[in-house]
Amino acid sequence: MAPSAITPPHAVQEAAELTAAAVEKKLAQTATAVNVVSKLKSLDASKLIFTKTKTPMSVPEPDDPIINTSSQCTDHMITAVWRSTTGWDAPELRPYGNLSLAPTASCLHYATECFEGMKMYRGYDGKLRLFRPDCNCKRMLISSTRIALPGFDPKELEKLIIAMIAVDGPKWLPKSRPGTFLYLRPSMIGSAGALGVASPKEATLFIIATFMPKLEQPTGLRLLASCDGVRAWPGGFGFAKVGANYGPTLMATKEASERGYHQVLWLLDGHVTEAGASNFMVVWRTKEGGLQLVTAPLDDKIILDGVTRRSILQLARERLTGSSERLEGLEALEIVERRFTMEEVVEAVKEGRMVEAFGAGTAFFVAPVCAIGYKDVDYTIPMARGDSGEYAHLIKTWLMNIMYGKEDHEWGVVIDEKEDF
Amino acid sequence: MAPSAITPPHAVQEAAELTAAAVEKKLAQTATAVNVVSKLKSLDASKLIFTKTKTPMSVPEPDDPIINTSSQCTDHMITAVWRSTTGWDAPELRPYGNLSLAPTASCLHYATECFEGMKMYRGYDGKLRLFRPDCNCKRMLISSTRIALPGFDPKELEKLIIAMIAVDGPKWLPKSRPGTFLYLRPSMIGSAGALGVASPKEATLFIIATFMPKLEQPTGLRLLASCDGVRAWPGGFGFAKVGANYGPTLMATKEASERGYHQVLWLLDGHVTEAGASNFMVVWRTKEGGLQLVTAPLDDKIILDGVTRRSILQLARERLTGSSERLEGLEALEIVERRFTMEEVVEAVKEGRMVEAFGAGTAFFVAPVCAIGYKDVDYTIPMARGDSGEYAHLIKTWLMNIMYGKEDHEWGVVIDEKEDF
Repeated sequence: MAPSAITPPHAVQEAAELTAAAVEKKLAQTATAVNVVSKLKSLDASKLIFTKTKTPMSVPEPDDPIINTSSQCTDHMITAVWRSTTGWDAPELRPYGNLSLAPTASCLHYATECFEGMKMYRGYDGKLRLFRPDCNCKRMLISSTRIALPGFDPKELEKLIIAMIAVDGPKWLPKSRPGTFLYLRPSMIGSAGALGVASPKEATLFIIATFMPKLEQPTGLRLLASCDGVRAWPGGFGFAKVGANYGPTLMATKEASERGYHQVLWLLDGHVTEAGASNFMVVWRTKEGGLQLVTAPLDDKIILDGVTRRSILQLARERLTGSSERLEGLEALEIVERRFTMEEVVEAVKEGRMVEAFGAGTAFFVAPVCAIGYKDVDYTIPMARGDSGEYAHLIKTWLMNIMYGKEDHEWGVVIDEKEDF
Repeated sequence: MAPSAITPPHAVQEAAELTAAAVEKKLAQTATAVNVVSKLKSLDASKLIFTKTKTPMSVPEPDDPIINTSSQCTDHMITAVWRSTTGWDAPELRPYGNLSLAPTASCLHYATECFEGMKMYRGYDGKLRLFRPDCNCKRMLISSTRIALPGFDPKELEKLIIAMIAVDGPKWLPKSRPGTFLYLRPSMIGSAGALGVASPKEATLFIIATFMPKLEQPTGLRLLASCDGVRAWPGGFGFAKVGANYGPTLMATKEASERGYHQVLWLLDGHVTEAGASNFMVVWRTKEGGLQLVTAPLDDKIILDGVTRRSILQLARERLTGSSERLEGLEALEIVERRFTMEEVVEAVKEGRMVEAFGAGTAFFVAPVCAIGYKDVDYTIPMARGDSGEYAHLIKTWLMNIMYGKEDHEWGVVIDEKEDF
């Protein structure tokens, strides 16, 4: 099938802004219509209640096997409860511990749950940073609204995340470990106990921080293109970071793993959408000889509006397009967001026009791809540097420089740490 | 769009059996390959450990408002934990209470969860019954496998459900309340604490029983046909009773409610699939003058293989088709499982050929439909008896007779109650 609906970048940008504007409008309406009239309380980070742990845990060494379990959390977590009758209670920073949920809790039956994935970074300059936390917090609102969970002001969520890492950052991501990160997981669940299939009357927001292993594959990711399985569909919820997008993919991922691949490359009607739980990008030479960075568009709402994806596109447009002066010795690229097919990928490989491909997401970061299995054939994707393509390497370096404080940039938000909590 | 893929009933039946056979084969392979080699324990109801509650609760009166919350459970619940390293622990019947879950638990982030919906019925003969519990237990295995949760022998799950209601049935669904029911909810969740997007290494099965309000609408259900929203798609998981099919529908259901409808009639490319969380059936006269009961087929795996749906089709084939001798004064029907479009429904209404329509599911039971909103027009669906069509009424009566012991039938499974627990 031929590619269709080629969307110019500015249109995508407008669409994204329109979406954000629509959400803000809805939130404002909610504030006016609901909060004022019925006095529902808004999420308010200034009301945060601090309760320090009395049983502090030990920070694992970098080679501790527990890190591979992605389950070692820090001393504290933040929770906030919302009720349909009263709104948001005061949030609490409290000792990390289990959640107590009624067996009838909505999230255990109807997947009324959404989350964000972020990292906090210990810079080479000793500072603690977040990377574009405003993007994650705005997306969390889009996800919570999509899954019938309550709204909130994203700026308040951002303040809570910052409060959490200001407390746990100094101990758990110490200055003695520059260039490392911890993973942050803001989540919201429908916690009301009620088996009726309806919007939950109670929700619980929680924020935790965990160690996570480095997921990079030194020899590149091997992807298996999906044949029958479909991750998301127009009219569905592929754009939202809701639990319902993840569990259903695990069976296919396990099968791919048993066949020697790391992740599934999700196709929809032959079109390439995402790789595992990451966005997917290719750099190829067109038949006309131009060089393009291509990724699937956001306009049909089947893929996640990834913060890494968005940041890569913006940096590439600023620094790698023809008008830029910072090409770093590489040929300029055209940045293209459009639908593209697996057949186009295969054709580019066969004709020697494929330059590189990579996944882009918070967990896997910029993950070079070395091969794609499709209809029982493995197609080799070039990795010019051995462990990566040139463009993925350069983009990854730029992003890391921002994350770890080697480049001063507005995307790197420095956190004021509470050393004496 | 014209209807396509008309599937003869026997082919559907074979497909369903093939699916069941495939699952059994997979289970047998698991038993051989995993349980024997690595000595993983199977789910075993004979190992059930009984712990009686020390704080028995009061049974609410039939008019207690708590019944409308669908959250009042009985004194006990059953739990069983599975670990990837050891298999299934001995199940426990224990006092009803909250579950303690790590904030990193898989089910809270990735919707690794599935469930069943069943009822226990207090018969007019004083006996306690389940309705085709084998069907629910087999489907639970299909659902758990689809969502990367562990397998089990459905017969063992059925034994656990029976053990649970044998204990709580006498008190919570007393003989003094013939013709009433309690709702049963077997569930399984990924309970392993680990944020990696992978099949859970620990799962928890639990079985609870709750009161549920009568969901019937005395004047019929008003449905709103979905325009943009899609419930399930080919290559997805619409056939499985997994949480990921429910949460994403709540926003559309709420919007329908705000516009004066009870449920969404889910369309896919204009084809009618399900109504709310129920199957959907129409009785119409064809242009050629024949009378048909029509419902969407199972073969594209986008709709749930409902136990009520299956039972209605079987009873209708036995008792309402031309060869039957038990037509109860009604004209014989042709039973048809095929894709059909909303445009066909509209055409049948406009041409006076629509006879009746109803939802079919455990929670809503047989729910007559009085109107369908589609593209800003409300189409009235006849209800010949005022509160129901003739066929829905007759089928509902037959099913209730089996459920409440007025008709002796193999689908009504009598439970041996433990009066002295």
